[in-house]
Amino acid sequence: MAKNITNPEKDFARWYQDVIREAELADSAPVRGCMIIRPYGYSIWENIKASLDASFKETGHKNAYFPLFIPESFIKKEAKHVEGFAPELAIVTHGGGKKLEEPLVVRPTSETIINHMFSKWINSYRDLPMLLNQWANVVRWEMRPRAFLRTTEFLWQEGHTAHANEEEAREETLRMLKVYADFAENVAAIPVIPGRKTEQEKFAGAVDSYTIEAMMGNGWALQSGTSHYLGTNFARVFDTMYLDSNNEQQFVHQTSWGVSTRLVGAVIMAHGDENGLRLPPKLAPVQVVIVPIARDDSARTEVLMVVDSINEGLKKMGIRVEVDNREGMSPGFKFNYWEVRGVPLRLEIGPRDLKEGHVTASARNRPGREDKFTISLDSLVENIPEILEKIQNEMLDEAIRKRDSRTYSVEDLGDFREAIVSDPGFYNVWWDGVAEDEVRLQKETKATVRCIPLEQQEGSGKCIMTGRETSTRVVLARAY
Amino acid sequence: MAKNITNPEKDFARWYQDVIREAELADSAPVRGCMIIRPYGYSIWENIKASLDASFKETGHKNAYFPLFIPESFIKKEAKHVEGFAPELAIVTHGGGKKLEEPLVVRPTSETIINHMFSKWINSYRDLPMLLNQWANVVRWEMRPRAFLRTTEFLWQEGHTAHANEEEAREETLRMLKVYADFAENVAAIPVIPGRKTEQEKFAGAVDSYTIEAMMGNGWALQSGTSHYLGTNFARVFDTMYLDSNNEQQFVHQTSWGVSTRLVGAVIMAHGDENGLRLPPKLAPVQVVIVPIARDDSARTEVLMVVDSINEGLKKMGIRVEVDNREGMSPGFKFNYWEVRGVPLRLEIGPRDLKEGHVTASARNRPGREDKFTISLDSLVENIPEILEKIQNEMLDEAIRKRDSRTYSVEDLGDFREAIVSDPGFYNVWWDGVAEDEVRLQKETKATVRCIPLEQQEGSGKCIMTGRETSTRVVLARAY
Repeated sequence: MAKNITNPEKDFARWYQDVIREAELADSAPVRGCMIIRPYGYSIWENIKASLDASFKETGHKNAYFPLFIPESFIKKEAKHVEGFAPELAIVTHGGGKKLEEPLVVRPTSETIINHMFSKWINSYRDLPMLLNQWANVVRWEMRPRAFLRTTEFLWQEGHTAHANEEEAREETLRMLKVYADFAENVAAIPVIPGRKTEQEKFAGAVDSYTIEAMMGNGWALQSGTSHYLGTNFARVFDTMYLDSNNEQQFVHQTSWGVSTRLVGAVIMAHGDENGLRLPPKLAPVQVVIVPIARDDSARTEVLMVVDSINEGLKKMGIRVEVDNREGMSPGFKFNYWEVRGVPLRLEIGPRDLKEGHVTASARNRPGREDKFTISLDSLVENIPEILEKIQNEMLDEAIRKRDSRTYSVEDLGDFREAIVSDPGFYNVWWDGVAEDEVRLQKETKATVRCIPLEQQEGSGKCIMTGRETSTRVVLARAY
Repeated sequence: MAKNITNPEKDFARWYQDVIREAELADSAPVRGCMIIRPYGYSIWENIKASLDASFKETGHKNAYFPLFIPESFIKKEAKHVEGFAPELAIVTHGGGKKLEEPLVVRPTSETIINHMFSKWINSYRDLPMLLNQWANVVRWEMRPRAFLRTTEFLWQEGHTAHANEEEAREETLRMLKVYADFAENVAAIPVIPGRKTEQEKFAGAVDSYTIEAMMGNGWALQSGTSHYLGTNFARVFDTMYLDSNNEQQFVHQTSWGVSTRLVGAVIMAHGDENGLRLPPKLAPVQVVIVPIARDDSARTEVLMVVDSINEGLKKMGIRVEVDNREGMSPGFKFNYWEVRGVPLRLEIGPRDLKEGHVTASARNRPGREDKFTISLDSLVENIPEILEKIQNEMLDEAIRKRDSRTYSVEDLGDFREAIVSDPGFYNVWWDGVAEDEVRLQKETKATVRCIPLEQQEGSGKCIMTGRETSTRVVLARAY
């Protein structure tokens, strides 16, 4: 067990804070609810961004930038929208030394301003589809902040698209959900359940909201990305119409979709262990750390020569590698340092290793620090990408195993009420409830309907709340 | 002359607005002073970011993210700092439905919050140098907004570093100035004069400010990047000290440096002509546009097959290429479309070209649309990188030529007062003035001391304002 890190089995919330502090991922800010993302944490976000941004561009989207400030009147235009956001807004009342005539809202999302521009930019069917994305900071006042998971200011991307008809817009909604699911599994090594949100849980203003739900280390769910089919809701408010090929005015059908710095929290909580962070190689700021070991100067010179050449070789292959040759620190201290930071692969090289023509390697995802292996020096550099890929796959497999082992089916509400306390996890249940049933469920169990999975099992059964026969299954869980 | 674009010789300010509108770079926002960066404009900024970010990382800097909101008390801590920013601040007074106890400032720069954190993170000499950078939006209330050049909200990067002593901090200040100058010349194809700012023009709170000054198409100067040696000014206010190797407490010496979306304005105004934008290949969102030309379907099929293979070939080489096969638009319309957008290289391919085994090419930087040349189909794809490099170099050469042709020496204030009106440009003058002389200069001529160039000529002469003998030369110009 690492020093200064609480056992996650004992107190998961404190463990989370400890890992963030010890791995130097973030720090609290002087303004309540805000956080400072430190270089190591920000680098994880940069890797998330780079991967997703490439996928967005591959699927035809372009980035743009819309203003931070939105006129208060815009937010009020869309009734459900304002209802959802009003209690969370930050308001600028003074600018340039004067009181403003109309207060400005610091964007909680850019839906309204983007729709305002869409109505200007979109005129004919030739302008469609319009496929935009924005990487930005947004602000939603947060009373119970938690680093990365809930902060007053957070970083995110928001995709906003306009289409000629419902079919294309619905296709886009699911396409982007799939982009998120693929990212989660293949890059973040976190298995997710893609599904539709219930009426109660969906985005205010959307016709249908979709989500990817991931399981964290304590069995709780984390909504890790959402994609919305907005129908013509915003188009009607902002009068966003296009002239179709028959010369008739039509409302556009829209989507929006987003992920945020919350994903960094997902990575911490899905993979971390009692020794700190564990990072999947594809997101790790440092994929390989090399710790040279030498007791005297002559050994040191010899070792560092080999280390330098390995370092150069790995860098050339595009691998993110770091050499820890800090003086005055023991190898043990360094091993801990990089272990807490979740570096996927550690290489130790000492005089004995050189003599035997290998390096000693240790993969962060394997349990126990003693599980070391050796890699021959001859083929070291060429072998690393494969080893990293193996670690990446092992981490996904482990996360799937963990999730599956905490995924249950339950039929009876009484059973569920007890089970969700003694054994938090994902509970598959038959569901035919409405909004009131969801409210009651949450009140009685603190759990919510995470989603109606896109992939539904065969068969039917009795709804856990209403007792009505149904063929729909949903996932219940406690959630962040 | 392109339709809808004012002749820049006649009205440069209107030309600038026209180009921004016609090339779809930006749009005005409903909130005064803010702008919307449209995908084409944002893509230029993305290319600027990618290039600079790589340079920052190569020089050892790491990105982090600090909060948008800064307690008002922080801003007030550093007297000169608050003096400089107070009239430009946007203030949040309400959050989460309540009036805040302490108003929050929307960051005009992150100096104070970063210093607050530095004082927490820096304890010993082992923590130094601390080399951070942030890509973020900042807000400075702007009464006379101009797209990209002066907007209430703008995007920028701000580097903040802390060092053990003055020497290292000064080295860093000049290192980053050089990074900016290299970027300007080798990526943006804009020659710049690196120099020191006068007392009057420097950043409030800095000991020394450095700048790169570029010349725009109308002979005005644009400050395109700044790098500041802050001394221990902020360290004393925020009590940022470290234990040196002799176990003594020392103040850190600091730097900060930044460039902003203003650089997009620089690219427009340094290179644009009467037909619109002209983009250096290294920053162009689209480096090569291919316009297939075919009058009938059978020719079309044949042409498109060749176009597809060229497109694939160029993409594989990492070249940003676009095929304009929109239907119902004439080749002439398309040529204009891409010309206004400043795409460096256009390739036309029609049946006759195919028969002759070549494509017809046209470089945006060469004067006149008739200056076409042909490239053999056999070696087309391999030749493109070299052609783009040639265009890049030609654009820098042209910008240098233009600037040099508008750079003058002048000895007498009366002469200068007339010359700066009839022939705006850079004026090298002898200078030994103080702040009052600068105020008078600006009042009488609307010009300012742009910088004291790092590279000084030999010799001496009489200061244009004071008449005192001096060996210092400065550059005077009208500036944005």
